[in-house]
Amino acid sequence: CAVGILDVDLCGPSIPRMLCVKKTEVHQCDAGWVPVYADPKQQLAIMSIGFLLEDSNEAVIWRGPKKTALIGQFVSDVAWGELDVLLVDTPPGTSDEHLSVLENLRKHRVDGAVLVTTPQAVSTGDVRREITFCKKTALKILGIVENMSGFVCPHCSECSNIFSKGGGEELAKLTGSVFLGSVPLDPHLTATLEEGQDFLQAFPESSTYTAISQIVNTLLSSLDA
Amino acid sequence: CAVGILDVDLCGPSIPRMLCVKKTEVHQCDAGWVPVYADPKQQLAIMSIGFLLEDSNEAVIWRGPKKTALIGQFVSDVAWGELDVLLVDTPPGTSDEHLSVLENLRKHRVDGAVLVTTPQAVSTGDVRREITFCKKTALKILGIVENMSGFVCPHCSECSNIFSKGGGEELAKLTGSVFLGSVPLDPHLTATLEEGQDFLQAFPESSTYTAISQIVNTLLSSLDA
Repeated sequence: CAVGILDVDLCGPSIPRMLCVKKTEVHQCDAGWVPVYADPKQQLAIMSIGFLLEDSNEAVIWRGPKKTALIGQFVSDVAWGELDVLLVDTPPGTSDEHLSVLENLRKHRVDGAVLVTTPQAVSTGDVRREITFCKKTALKILGIVENMSGFVCPHCSECSNIFSKGGGEELAKLTGSVFLGSVPLDPHLTATLEEGQDFLQAFPESSTYTAISQIVNTLLSSLDA
Repeated sequence: CAVGILDVDLCGPSIPRMLCVKKTEVHQCDAGWVPVYADPKQQLAIMSIGFLLEDSNEAVIWRGPKKTALIGQFVSDVAWGELDVLLVDTPPGTSDEHLSVLENLRKHRVDGAVLVTTPQAVSTGDVRREITFCKKTALKILGIVENMSGFVCPHCSECSNIFSKGGGEELAKLTGSVFLGSVPLDPHLTATLEEGQDFLQAFPESSTYTAISQIVNTLLSSLDA
């Protein structure tokens, strides 16, 4: 299965670090920019503005039109090759990045959007506005994920709902969307993302692993349906 | 002391909910839009796009130029009155909102920016880019706050560093900025923000209260200096 990940968070590109492909140059070929591969088998292709900056601390001080132009290039001028899935990681909101991605992908088949919230109302409020965006732009909502959902203390095994509880599931019910599941707060998950390690390989026995697997399976079965 | 809060997160306005001034209409007077006051003494004036939407679930599907225009109006066409301080709450990043606020405030004296990060490298990386933005735009950095900094389990009192530790302080050292302090993860803080309660009044004995007070005092003394 060949997967592409397109990171359109131009001011805060985090995909390169999370997948541990920080220091790479992007090459050109006849078909355009060659994406950076995260694995030796070249099945996971990535494109991010993080690869285009000479210095990773450089600020991308761009207004909307410049962002729009680069996102157009990311969709059209990258030699993605034959992909089974292209995953687009957007920043929060309903603005230039989201409109540009949609416009540029219109000619392709777009399966839909996965919306990620945290449990508290301040966050579900933002995601409700993103649901409105999806409806206005006729983008199918594949489902809602609740992130940062409860923390099980490693010392005493008691669970604390640091950011409230159940907001994602409630939002899904309220808006008639599929609830894909919850990902707990887990220091191991944060640490592996920091170091670009594969969490699923490192912690296959953890409850977080089970939670993520369930989300993936629910999503995949809804795509098949 | 008269304080204004300008919320320029146009796609995710959270100030109205956090300060419990959700359902209000913005009125017009000769001097422009009348801000919404969070207190009966009218010492805390707020302006947010949240007040301008008929339905709070409405999505603000705007590209940059429209955002820029509204932010200009928020600075110039709001009857703020005599303020001692205007606090501008921006979304993350270094784009339209940040450039527009700066441009519109150029004619006023701008004290500087307080940057907020969480401890992990994915977040400090974004804030490093914001530091570059401040340097390029000659905006003074008043200091760096580390948020979501450790969680003390209410059941066993052990501390877990869910999102790594010390990234904010390290970033401050690395960039020669003032480190203002850390705010721990605290379910009481989240809950009061959800309900628009005043955390500082409700939990004056908590360690989070102490942490926030220290940050405020450090910031105020650096402003006086």
